[in-house]
Amino acid sequence: MYKIGILGYGNLGRGVEAAVKKNDDMELVAVYTRRDPSALKINTPGVPVKSTADLDTGKEDLDVLVICGGSATDLPVMTPKYAAMYNVIDSFDTHAKVPEHFKNVDEAAKSAGKTGIISCGWDPGMFSLSRVYATAVLPDGRDYTFWGKGVSQGHSDAVRRIDGVIDCRQYTIPVPEALDRVRNGENPALSTREKHTRECFVVAEEGADLARIENEIKTMPNYFADYDTTVHFISADEMKANHSGLPHGGSVIYSGTTSEGKGHVIEYSLKLDSNPEFTGSVLLACARAAARMNAEGACGAKTVFDIAPAYLCSQDGDYLRAHLL
Amino acid sequence: MYKIGILGYGNLGRGVEAAVKKNDDMELVAVYTRRDPSALKINTPGVPVKSTADLDTGKEDLDVLVICGGSATDLPVMTPKYAAMYNVIDSFDTHAKVPEHFKNVDEAAKSAGKTGIISCGWDPGMFSLSRVYATAVLPDGRDYTFWGKGVSQGHSDAVRRIDGVIDCRQYTIPVPEALDRVRNGENPALSTREKHTRECFVVAEEGADLARIENEIKTMPNYFADYDTTVHFISADEMKANHSGLPHGGSVIYSGTTSEGKGHVIEYSLKLDSNPEFTGSVLLACARAAARMNAEGACGAKTVFDIAPAYLCSQDGDYLRAHLL
Repeated sequence: MYKIGILGYGNLGRGVEAAVKKNDDMELVAVYTRRDPSALKINTPGVPVKSTADLDTGKEDLDVLVICGGSATDLPVMTPKYAAMYNVIDSFDTHAKVPEHFKNVDEAAKSAGKTGIISCGWDPGMFSLSRVYATAVLPDGRDYTFWGKGVSQGHSDAVRRIDGVIDCRQYTIPVPEALDRVRNGENPALSTREKHTRECFVVAEEGADLARIENEIKTMPNYFADYDTTVHFISADEMKANHSGLPHGGSVIYSGTTSEGKGHVIEYSLKLDSNPEFTGSVLLACARAAARMNAEGACGAKTVFDIAPAYLCSQDGDYLRAHLL
Repeated sequence: MYKIGILGYGNLGRGVEAAVKKNDDMELVAVYTRRDPSALKINTPGVPVKSTADLDTGKEDLDVLVICGGSATDLPVMTPKYAAMYNVIDSFDTHAKVPEHFKNVDEAAKSAGKTGIISCGWDPGMFSLSRVYATAVLPDGRDYTFWGKGVSQGHSDAVRRIDGVIDCRQYTIPVPEALDRVRNGENPALSTREKHTRECFVVAEEGADLARIENEIKTMPNYFADYDTTVHFISADEMKANHSGLPHGGSVIYSGTTSEGKGHVIEYSLKLDSNPEFTGSVLLACARAAARMNAEGACGAKTVFDIAPAYLCSQDGDYLRAHLL
């Protein structure tokens, strides 16, 4: 049994907890929180909730610590800190800062003889794998990534910060014509606006200036200004009834050629009822790999690119070759 | 530069040759044939065609030998034989005999300090990877593999052996309703007949008994009897004009759950203009991995499950993390 600790008990932490229940070789030994542990009830009976102060001793009996924090401020600090004490997994997803984060985790983990796998999830994660395999097999080609239809939590949060907004759910939606062109192997040049549209369901305060809110959303730099965005104002009841899930998904489509006139299209796609539960499941498979790689002396920072797929599976090589090859 | 040798110059050997031209770090140093080398002209100027007698000395200067033979009789002999002399790659695809083949290659390669990667291609190969990753992430789920629409060379050959048949092209076609049900996450039980149909384009000898040929095809055990098969008789000219390519493809669809009511569908699909050129490209990416793994002392038989994806790529880890993660 692999002894798993979870740091942070938001949507993602609960997703990892759900994944532990689906894996017979995994045991949740503790959930760690920065808040008062006595105030937190978790879904697994008999498993203690502890303070991060316990974790900070470096003496918790864990095979792997799964760090469920945000990429903006939590993970850049937490992952290197705990990689100096435990094998760790995170889902760091700020693509531009991956090299820096990798370096920090690598130094901490190597000096402690630990293994830290960063940026696990579906993008980065499973989508990255799809891009790398396709690039390796068809070097003369290019990849396209489409997200959705699904809820972007970052964009939903951005709208919630607008004055007069009580709640928001933002769906990212691929443009069907763009998907079709890429699937046909046309290798089109596509602007941001041509790839995705955005749709917002907003609960506003009573009497709020809806036209102003809609305008603030549609013109918000980085988040919405470069997209065609639709805004719907709905009631809190409708939000609860129709938009309480966190579905997501998307596709990586790679189109390449092997000789004149011979083109090939590779597509990897996900349709997820729950983004955090699927992400948690990826994190847990990577946790298994971290424990195994560490046992073999492979210390330092790793990504999914460094993991032989067999390390992610509970089954042994004989089984995998006989049943899945 | 990785020094690549190709053994066998049929469709697959030519596919590997085409792939070498797309990879800047690869150099084709020789094509080996069991026939008279002087009778064989290859597509790469300046590269020698040699006899397998040269290969048998064990002294050819190769980083990796890519063995392009058939799974029925060639590879079970050739791959263990040459794994005792060179790092080797093959595309062994008799699923039921993989464990035995793996063992034979493993013993030969280990005793020689070489690395042999077996069963590279798209199924087994890329499809196997898709099955393993999905199983690792969603252990509570199941996979479905659909092939086509595409040309099955084995089925085409089987029809060609019927008395009165000059030529045949057999297309394997997934049943759209079955695909839809699996994509919807229904996890249906599907018989062989419910998953695929088969369509044959046949050139018959003048005066041949077409009804007999059609009946022999449709009732052929293993190949056609369990499927709904359509037979079209066409002219040799029509065969040449409309059926000269070897397109193929298919999908691995995996459907699994993470908790009550939370289902997820993962789909990996390929649409290939040329089955042998794509397969050859997979073999070549695996050749790169074989050379690298051997240099690190990872000897013996391997499959795609044992290869960390980064080993397949010409780019280094810094590049991959910055651009593809």
